[in-house]
Amino acid sequence: MIGEEPSNIRTREAAERDFIVRALRAVDVSESDANDVANVLVAADLRGVESHGIARLDMFYVRRIEAGVVNARPQYTALSDRPTQFALDAGNGLGHPAGIFAMRKTIEKARENGLAFATVRNSNHYGIAAYYAMMALEHGLIGLSMTNSTHLAVPTFGRQKTQGTNPIAVAIPAGEHAPYVLDMATTGVTFGRLEVSERKGKQLKPGWAVDAEGRETLDATTAMTKGALLPLGGYGTDNGGHKGYGLGALVEILCGVLSGGLFGTSLGLDERGLHGGTVSHFFGAFRVDALRDGDAFRRDLDRQLRTFEDSAPSPGADRVVIAGEPERAFTERYRREGVPIDPKVWDGIDEMAKRLNIDKLERFTVG
Amino acid sequence: MIGEEPSNIRTREAAERDFIVRALRAVDVSESDANDVANVLVAADLRGVESHGIARLDMFYVRRIEAGVVNARPQYTALSDRPTQFALDAGNGLGHPAGIFAMRKTIEKARENGLAFATVRNSNHYGIAAYYAMMALEHGLIGLSMTNSTHLAVPTFGRQKTQGTNPIAVAIPAGEHAPYVLDMATTGVTFGRLEVSERKGKQLKPGWAVDAEGRETLDATTAMTKGALLPLGGYGTDNGGHKGYGLGALVEILCGVLSGGLFGTSLGLDERGLHGGTVSHFFGAFRVDALRDGDAFRRDLDRQLRTFEDSAPSPGADRVVIAGEPERAFTERYRREGVPIDPKVWDGIDEMAKRLNIDKLERFTVG
Repeated sequence: MIGEEPSNIRTREAAERDFIVRALRAVDVSESDANDVANVLVAADLRGVESHGIARLDMFYVRRIEAGVVNARPQYTALSDRPTQFALDAGNGLGHPAGIFAMRKTIEKARENGLAFATVRNSNHYGIAAYYAMMALEHGLIGLSMTNSTHLAVPTFGRQKTQGTNPIAVAIPAGEHAPYVLDMATTGVTFGRLEVSERKGKQLKPGWAVDAEGRETLDATTAMTKGALLPLGGYGTDNGGHKGYGLGALVEILCGVLSGGLFGTSLGLDERGLHGGTVSHFFGAFRVDALRDGDAFRRDLDRQLRTFEDSAPSPGADRVVIAGEPERAFTERYRREGVPIDPKVWDGIDEMAKRLNIDKLERFTVG
Repeated sequence: MIGEEPSNIRTREAAERDFIVRALRAVDVSESDANDVANVLVAADLRGVESHGIARLDMFYVRRIEAGVVNARPQYTALSDRPTQFALDAGNGLGHPAGIFAMRKTIEKARENGLAFATVRNSNHYGIAAYYAMMALEHGLIGLSMTNSTHLAVPTFGRQKTQGTNPIAVAIPAGEHAPYVLDMATTGVTFGRLEVSERKGKQLKPGWAVDAEGRETLDATTAMTKGALLPLGGYGTDNGGHKGYGLGALVEILCGVLSGGLFGTSLGLDERGLHGGTVSHFFGAFRVDALRDGDAFRRDLDRQLRTFEDSAPSPGADRVVIAGEPERAFTERYRREGVPIDPKVWDGIDEMAKRLNIDKLERFTVG
């Protein structure tokens, strides 16, 4: 979790991947789809985005399949398939295979025709947005990924939840330098950040959340139970809250409305507190070398990124960091030291393993 | 100016347009290019974005041409011209005609091939980003416009200016509802906001600016003379400052680096304090009906936008507002009541008219 020391109970990347596949196979997900989900969840844990990794496997994916609100064996329908566009109905299947399928199509079309966009509707939670944008990198393409999500945030001047954390991810291939990978919720913070504050008994920062009436609140429990998140830029317009709201609404339009999926009213829970088929995604890919010599671009991007890195830090800061860099550092570290999993999450996945009658995930302790 | 009552010394839209054309013709700009600049500047003043309207005519455009740092008669070079891509070298000409030229190409290609992107390098300040994105609307397309700009902002954890206010604009056509038009600087506030605070003797808000050492400052003069703007999300990472920085860097990459233009080091002033040919733009357009039936999309977007408008307001707020709505209201009002121009700006343009030996801009007083 952000701002916390990683758990010293670890597992290995390969073991985690294998465990996730076994869990999903146990609820009738195909081998290929289970592999897709495992790849995205393991990538999240490796990148230090624990909230989007194996922590969600049971509640978000396995249980929703068991409850019949997400289809283990969805039927995909191509709604549009043109040289530079692809629109998919994901048949209320898992979001990760749908996202990977659509992004592969987008990449294929972009390689052939320079650039391409895709929408996916009737899908489910797809994990970290960056995963799909980064798929473009190995093809030398710029990748784009967005998703709408359960409504947790108010608009500027509002008290009703009208949008989710609605992330935007962009990945741009560099030369010798690591790629530029931006993956940002369009809210100021995510719900996970409120959870951490509550667990630690700490007040929220101004600009993070509102209470049920839409007034700013610093109380984590109030924000989580009755309130809502604020857009990036915070309360009102003084610090650009309307910009975060505007970006979140943009994601809502490009995903929910442009795909023909659900939008507008809360992407809500059913009577059992479970979601299904309510989420839509938007993907893009484009070729750099259609606009400019690819080698020259990559060399110049290296220089641009080094300009950021080499610029003088503010007092108390080590140095200026580039988008995607912390996640890359986590990945290297956790590949070496093992993937940390929170003790509470360990309890949950052990219980799930027992319920599904599969072998437990192997673990070891560090430190 | 933002947060101030509009000046009661007004002019008419047509008179303003005509005056701008005459001023630019006097420094040898072609009729067609002068018309382009006039259209963008008048649109800015009508939309209530006074900082980007006629207020900049003399200092940003006329004087730079007189000083020879911007070409009145630029030679355009197409660097790439493909079915879905266009890359232009604008020959160090004015940014507005270059932007309009490139956006027209982008629209043409998007109409034919579903979507298109364009870069423009070796250009100059192009005014409001929204203008170019909105050009797509009359063709039923979604439009995108970004530009890098003079470096005025620090990155998160930094003290050196590495990026400009780097705006992102997106325009999306609706049905009966007015279009969705987002036009946002990726900094928390613009430089103009600091100027207003200084003029009014008011402290800045936290999250707006830093001093020369990269420490947060609430003093407008310090921020303006020695300091810098902060990214959207403010100081550090607590409120997502790294997201604003990440978006600003993205604009820097898609404009400066992808176009093959200037990037990396400050887009600086020459020894006379003047700029030229240092700015790059990025444009996009795409067809809705390639992904989904256009009528269904527009009908659903109407519903989505009404969902925002109809959602309950927070205490003290009238209602939830949609991106582009305030600018549309200003336009209607100023078309009716005349375009307000600040008394200081009037002095400047009168002086310029005298210098250029052209008729003064007609004015009238309201209230």
